[in-house]
This record gives sequence, C-alpha cells and structure tokens, in this order.
Amino acid sequence: MTAVGLPRGFRAGAARAGVKTGVPERLDVGLIVADRPCSAAGVFTTNQVIAAPCVVTRRHLERGALRAIVVNSGNANACTGEQGERDAVAMAGAAAEKIGCALHEVAVASTGVIGVPLPLQRIATAVRAITPTEVGYGDVADAIMTTDTRSKTIGVAVGVGGIEVVVRGIAKGAGMIHPNMATLLAFVMTDATVPVDELRAMTRRAAERSFNAISVDGDTSTNDTLLVLASGASGSPVDTGTLVTVEREIAGVCEKLARMIVEDGEGATRVFEVHLRGALTDADAKLAARTITASNLVKTAIHGADPNWGRILAAAGRSGARVDQARASVRIGDVVVYASGAPRSFDGAAVRRIFSAKQIAIEVDLGLGAGEARAWGSDLSAEYVRINAEYTT
Amino acid sequence: MTAVGLPRGFRAGAARAGVKTGVPERLDVGLIVADRPCSAAGVFTTNQVIAAPCVVTRRHLERGALRAIVVNSGNANACTGEQGERDAVAMAGAAAEKIGCALHEVAVASTGVIGVPLPLQRIATAVRAITPTEVGYGDVADAIMTTDTRSKTIGVAVGVGGIEVVVRGIAKGAGMIHPNMATLLAFVMTDATVPVDELRAMTRRAAERSFNAISVDGDTSTNDTLLVLASGASGSPVDTGTLVTVEREIAGVCEKLARMIVEDGEGATRVFEVHLRGALTDADAKLAARTITASNLVKTAIHGADPNWGRILAAAGRSGARVDQARASVRIGDVVVYASGAPRSFDGAAVRRIFSAKQIAIEVDLGLGAGEARAWGSDLSAEYVRINAEYTT
Repeated sequence: MTAVGLPRGFRAGAARAGVKTGVPERLDVGLIVADRPCSAAGVFTTNQVIAAPCVVTRRHLERGALRAIVVNSGNANACTGEQGERDAVAMAGAAAEKIGCALHEVAVASTGVIGVPLPLQRIATAVRAITPTEVGYGDVADAIMTTDTRSKTIGVAVGVGGIEVVVRGIAKGAGMIHPNMATLLAFVMTDATVPVDELRAMTRRAAERSFNAISVDGDTSTNDTLLVLASGASGSPVDTGTLVTVEREIAGVCEKLARMIVEDGEGATRVFEVHLRGALTDADAKLAARTITASNLVKTAIHGADPNWGRILAAAGRSGARVDQARASVRIGDVVVYASGAPRSFDGAAVRRIFSAKQIAIEVDLGLGAGEARAWGSDLSAEYVRINAEYTT
Repeated sequence: MTAVGLPRGFRAGAARAGVKTGVPERLDVGLIVADRPCSAAGVFTTNQVIAAPCVVTRRHLERGALRAIVVNSGNANACTGEQGERDAVAMAGAAAEKIGCALHEVAVASTGVIGVPLPLQRIATAVRAITPTEVGYGDVADAIMTTDTRSKTIGVAVGVGGIEVVVRGIAKGAGMIHPNMATLLAFVMTDATVPVDELRAMTRRAAERSFNAISVDGDTSTNDTLLVLASGASGSPVDTGTLVTVEREIAGVCEKLARMIVEDGEGATRVFEVHLRGALTDADAKLAARTITASNLVKTAIHGADPNWGRILAAAGRSGARVDQARASVRIGDVVVYASGAPRSFDGAAVRRIFSAKQIAIEVDLGLGAGEARAWGSDLSAEYVRINAEYTT
C-alpha cells in the first residue's frame, strides 16, 4: 500500500486573505474541488443561532451533490444578519465561478470570531488565487485552524474486491467544542461509490459516535459542520458488503479526527475517556457520559491529578440520566474507587499517577441496565482561561 | 430600629471538630437551636446522587416542624453508602440528645469533600461542646465555609401591624454552584408566625428566584440545602397582608444570600446579571439566562473584558429555549451590540470598560413573547482552575 493522499477525483489548495488580523502570514482560505459532482451529505450545529454558511450549505445539500467546499478561518460569519447570508452565497459563488459549476454545487464553511461582517472581497480574491492540487489537503487543514495548535488530517486506504478505496478527513476545532450534531469543521472525502441516501445515513451515524461524543468546554458552536463527499472515482461496487466496509472507514476517520480535536482542546494537557455502562438506555448512557466529560469540576480535578472521584458520580447524578447511587460503581484506570453504592478505600497516589498520564480511562457502571456509551473530554487548565479571555482582542 | 440579630426564639453557636484537615483552627461544626418547635420547610438538590444528610433531613421535614439544625463543613457525607446515612442520623441524634428533643426535630447538613466517611465521633463531641447564644449566628456562618473567602449572613427587620418581625439568613457556597432546587447550604430563620403549608410554598418560590438563578461553574452539588424556620416568637398575626410582607422579606434575604455566593464564586473577580426578556415563556427565559450565566466562553470573555458578545447569543441558541436570531437583540450595559437580527457597530473600548467593572448588566431580548427571567453568574478565572485542581490534596 502506498502513502495515502487525497482520494481519486479530488484536489485541494489554500491561500491567504488576511481575514485573521495580526497573523498575516497564515493561510486562511481553503478550497476542495471534485472533478465531477459527488454524493454529499452533511450534519450541522443544533444551535438555533446557526451561522450563515451552515444555512446556505444545508440548502445546497438538499440536492445531494457537491463539486466543491470553500472555507475560511478568522471570521465565523455568524450573527451577521441578512448581510451574512448574502456574503456566504457570494463566497460560494466565487468558488463556483472559478470551477465552472452551479452555485448549489458549492458548500461554504467559516470559523472564527462571531458577529463581525465577513471581509468578502479579500476572501473572493484569495479563492481566485488558489490552484488546487492532489497534495494540497495539508494546506486546507492549515487554513482552517484558529486556536488549534496543530492541523488535523488523516487518510486511510482499504481494499474492496480488488479495488482500493481511499478516505481522507480534515478537521479543525479546539474551543467552543461540545458538538451536538457535528464538530466545528470536518470534511471527509472518499473515492468510494456511495449513493446519497446511504451517505446521509452513514454521516449521521458516524457523527453520533465521534464528534458528538467529545467536549472541550461545554459550549456548542454556531458553525459546526461535518461534510462527507464520495466521488465514486475508485469504481468501487455498491453492494452491501462494500458499503459496510466504506462506512467503517468513514466512521473510523471521523473518530480519529474527533480524538485529534479533543487532544488539541484549548489549554488541554490530557484527554480522558468515559466508558459509561449499565445505564437504563444508550441515550441515558450518552447523557451521563457527556455530562461527566463537560463538568468543569471533573476537568479541573483531572488537570490537577486530584483523586476527587466524587465529582464524577455527582456529574452523572445531575445529568438527567437515571442514577441510583446504591447500585453504581466507578473505576479510574484499574483502581475501583466506588463499588455497588459504597466508597472503597484506595491508594490515592495510584490514582494521582493515572490522572497524570496523557490518556485516562474512567469507567462508570450504573448497574441499572444494558445502556452503554463512550465520550471523550479534555482537562480544564488556566491556559484555557487565558486563551478565551483574550480571543477577539 | 436596632441592629438586627437572630430572630426571637433562636440561638446559635459553633465549635471545632478538626473535620477539615490542615486547618485545625477553623470552626467546622455549627448548631442552630429554636426554643420551641418551629414551622420548617426545605428544598434540596435535584442531583440524583443526593447526600445522606439531605435524605435524612428531607425525611425529618415531613412533619413540618424543627427544633434544630446541625451542620459541618470539611466533609459532605455524600457517596458514602449506607454508613453515610447512619452517620447523618447519629449526627442529628447528638444534637437531639444535647437539646432534649426528638430525633426527627433535627435537620442535618454537611458540605465538603465527597466520598470520605464522616468523622462522626469528633463531630458528636464538638456538638456537645457548643453553647448556643443569641449572637452566635456569625460563628455558624464561619463554620460552614469551605472555599468561601468570606462568611455570608444578613438580617432584616420589618414592622407588621406594630410588631417587629426579624429574618436572618446564613449561607455558604463558592464552587459546585449551579443549584437546581437550592444552593449548597442556606438557613433562614424568622420569628414571624407562618403556618407550615404557607412556609413550604414561600420557600419554593424564594429558591426559584434566588439560589436557583445563580451559577459559578455549572456543576450541581450533591448537598444543596435551603432550610427556612419560622418560630412565631414575634407573635405576628397570620393574615394575608402580613404573610405577603414576611414572604417578601424571606425572598429578599434569599436573593441577597444568593448574590453573596456568586460574588464569592471560586476565583471570581466580577459578577454579571443576565436579564432575559422577550422569550416565548418564563421557562424559556430562565433556560436561556441560566445557560448564558453557565457558559465557560461567556465567563472567560467577561473575565478578560473581551467584547466578544457573539458568545452570549450562541449560548442562548444552544440552551434549548426557542431562539430566532433574526428577532433577537443584545445589550451590554447601555451599549446595543446586536439589534433585531443584525450586529451593530459599537465602541469596543466602551464594552471593555463595562466588562471591567465588578457588576455587569447584560440584557438579551429574544423578541418572541413576554417570558422574562434574571440570572447571575461569576466570571471564570485561572484562579478557579487552581482552586479546583487542588481541592482534596
């Protein structure tokens, strides 16, 4: 197997528009182009204050086919009123004109500060200057970074009946991360052949177990967008076995991108996974797991390597999931701290060591049923406060 | 009007039991005693992981009468299994024995670390050593402090038909503050005559507009307790006019105590009030207002005096309340930043000045209906992280 690049049928590139003031040397406009119309599906923020690019892209996706994604960082084009929607359409229009496709074949995405009009002319000029190539996805990953400390992209290849199918994902996200349909920005491309109805279902399921299971700070963005494009350029067949394989790879790429985002959470020094078992339902398990990963008190305890496990159970208790403390158990790494309704005496130094690692596993068993979920959170540090106290200024 | 002390019929005092290791000189056990059985009402945490003292006190309150409240800090007696409930009963029993009343006439409350067995013997010994006096409420306010930087108590007197009625409140709370029935610990005493059914309704209403409207960190405690005791020792009449006056004073004391708690929020440097108007319903208004006051991104922006108002609207948008960004408006102090669906150009330096004050007023008008609510939050600082990364250790 050779090194994996972009799937067949895709090119990508980026340019500088100077949207983000103060860092003029940074790429901030990206373009992903497909040679032919692709099957396309997306999931978007559930925040009712939804950004203009999400509104426009959701509308364009109704036909289920895309030729391009155009994206900028430095300005979210959110809370920008009717002008914001006109700007998002114009930004898609600049890409459509360059490529020679219909406006509705272009998806548009933005990330950055909220409530400031988009500098449309500078972005349109940058779009025209981009020369998409087969290796340009790294530039797009760079161009969508905001407070991210590293760019996030991953590619995999899998053989289906003698044909190699490639899946490549690109994402960004570090703050305002508590997605409730998708994460800030994630684009997944594949050269597999996937009918649009199947792709829509795959995208929903993949988002649920990846981006919708991470939390950096409990705040859901106005701009969350996950787009999945399938070009079919590999010529892969459309049988059930192949689609199952393709979905597994798409879901796997989404989960890896989601982990990258939480590992790069603003100010994060470590990541913890909560495996919630024994809930009455899977929905209850997810609710409790996500509440634990979003709890400031759990996050600060982990940041300080403080074995204050009661905060984990207290977060489950306020989550809205059914909890009976007399039946619950909590394990941190391999140390049982609470079992079947009673605290266990344990070695505090051992838990401190576990909490000091980069990756931490926490298991909560509610002892009530078969409901199960996993969620991932980052710790809360003074650095998070510093980053977010100085964001626009 | 003379200086207000305890209402007639009450005495209070505190002692040292050494529950909180490392600060042996601190008062940590308090006792409030009524000469005769009082009308009593309480509201407790809605966290399903509810602490043993809350379980015991709720049971004792079913009869609607109390003679005493016994309380300790340094240990929450939460997540302590069946032993925890036996300890809470024994703690109440120590107070009942000292006073010469029935066990069920004693309320018990605890605050501090979760999941560690209560040092019952030391607490019982301390209870026996307390000599309650008419001026001892300050010692009780001191004894219930944990990460609080100052004790919280307030007294008011009001004349009803020539009779002076006194209301005195005591509270604690600085972290794990996002109450959802009451706050961590608050005790309100009055010498007004209030039948227990009326007192229960007054207590519920007062909690809703005071303790249930503040947020320090979004985490709901396992031990939240508000108790209101009415001795009737003033001989005040039980007519509607008097009861309305008494309720107004009880609610006023609760609101002032709640403000004291959020002003003393862990690491807090300033407090902001969100006045949410124009929601479809009051419930929607409360949901949106509380989500804004609990948002880490809003809290850090205010901490950094960063005029990043989009975070306010984004928090409302994810709250679950009905929001239409095309009809919403946002005002910070007297500066309109967003009006009827579009951002307004504004003087950033002016908003920075407003955010730099100790008290900040934010008004959000959703433009949808007559629903209205107020909520109070503290900012999120690096000091909050420091305090909570080192709590048990």
